[in-house]
Amino acid sequence: MLIIGEKINASNKSVGQAINNKDREFLEGLARDQAAAGADFIDVNAGVGQGAWEHPEAAMEWLVELVQAATDKPLTIDSDVPGVIEAALRKYSGDDVMINSVSAEPEKLEAVGPLAVERQASLVALAMGRGRIPDNVEERLAACDEIMTYLTRLGLREDQVFFDPLVLPIAVDTTQGLVTLKTIEQIKSRYPTAKTVMGLSNISYGLPQRGMVNRAFLLMAASAGLDAAILDPLDAKMMSFVRVADMLTGKDLSCKGYIRAHRKGMLLE
Amino acid sequence: MLIIGEKINASNKSVGQAINNKDREFLEGLARDQAAAGADFIDVNAGVGQGAWEHPEAAMEWLVELVQAATDKPLTIDSDVPGVIEAALRKYSGDDVMINSVSAEPEKLEAVGPLAVERQASLVALAMGRGRIPDNVEERLAACDEIMTYLTRLGLREDQVFFDPLVLPIAVDTTQGLVTLKTIEQIKSRYPTAKTVMGLSNISYGLPQRGMVNRAFLLMAASAGLDAAILDPLDAKMMSFVRVADMLTGKDLSCKGYIRAHRKGMLLE
Repeated sequence: MLIIGEKINASNKSVGQAINNKDREFLEGLARDQAAAGADFIDVNAGVGQGAWEHPEAAMEWLVELVQAATDKPLTIDSDVPGVIEAALRKYSGDDVMINSVSAEPEKLEAVGPLAVERQASLVALAMGRGRIPDNVEERLAACDEIMTYLTRLGLREDQVFFDPLVLPIAVDTTQGLVTLKTIEQIKSRYPTAKTVMGLSNISYGLPQRGMVNRAFLLMAASAGLDAAILDPLDAKMMSFVRVADMLTGKDLSCKGYIRAHRKGMLLE
Repeated sequence: MLIIGEKINASNKSVGQAINNKDREFLEGLARDQAAAGADFIDVNAGVGQGAWEHPEAAMEWLVELVQAATDKPLTIDSDVPGVIEAALRKYSGDDVMINSVSAEPEKLEAVGPLAVERQASLVALAMGRGRIPDNVEERLAACDEIMTYLTRLGLREDQVFFDPLVLPIAVDTTQGLVTLKTIEQIKSRYPTAKTVMGLSNISYGLPQRGMVNRAFLLMAASAGLDAAILDPLDAKMMSFVRVADMLTGKDLSCKGYIRAHRKGMLLE
């Protein structure tokens, strides 16, 4: 499972404050800690540009430079605003980069698609169009089809697209776990070289003991074919289940990663 | 998930001794405790008839009578010996009963199949023929086809058959997790009203921290369509994940079971 470390996101209160206050040390620590804990990509979301920042572009450029200096892991440039993504890509000097995200909304595809092609970036694509997240597999797949048609015509390869099947809270609609799992399976069947990626925590919204629900859903998604997860790599229980998921889905040759993690005392139950 | 409590099995040393010594109290306690912890069926395996017992049939008859008196849960009659199954069924007065197990071996089907039909019992059927467990999906499905053809001709309904997809240790062959999950999916697709059932612990054989591997595999199997599991219902962590699995696969209406378990402090992470 490819792990995208989610912690450097301005929507997290302490991170937002650190960005607004230009607290380099705190943010560098978050980057390094996530890399050390097993993140393959570091997600970077600088928010809307408050505090010390006049523009969201300036906040993002500062944050990209800071995180890039703190770790050699590639970045996931995370913003809803195409201009912010563009500014971040200009500032970022790494070869390997991911953009988070587009959806099937034409204006998003038209603004962000060319940036991904120009940089040959990986691109997270939400399985939805304008408005609400569809509550069924068919509409999510229709959005994926629109996205893939547009992006491949534009010059992106299928294997550069990371589809997010999206997940709605199980507490609101108990069919939604299976809807998401089925969406993953169908995406992998339609686009065998495309990837799937997901944040997990939405599944447990409104429930108690959310951590165990999120971990359980990660395992189910892994067996449905999930390739990547956006999560907190400092959550040792979650990362333990990531290792188990990799082993049980045949991605951990001779179970070496699992056994090594056990010997280091890293498998938290 | 239908839970078959596995604890009353003579291959467990303390249980074997209790059977040999006719220790009623210990065995009654195991039956009651499993029922209280959420077992839907109580598996009963009296072993080969040692200690106080001259015949395995006599040990099984005694044990069936004892467990039946201790709980109102239905029993799973667990033996390799058709004569022992027959003796147990004669002694057992409940309507609902499960037999564990047959395979595609003709002599097993011929001996146990008619007992299941006569009693209209559910029947656990191992996805294998004679000899070793097949290491691939195709041979396991071929065994299922032979079994289903035989049993339905004999007069058993498809929904009375509980196929065990079988699982080989992931430490020996890292493809075996996916082989088992794929076998479950294929069985459910071929025989939509048939059930699937599995013991989990074989998956983690030879590995450290086996509990978390078993729990993880339960979640994956649940999302592949597993209907029933043979496990220790006194394992509170495992039972917590059973509840989460039921919720995430849409079997827990309005998440009521999960929330009730949380309020009772029963969800152990």
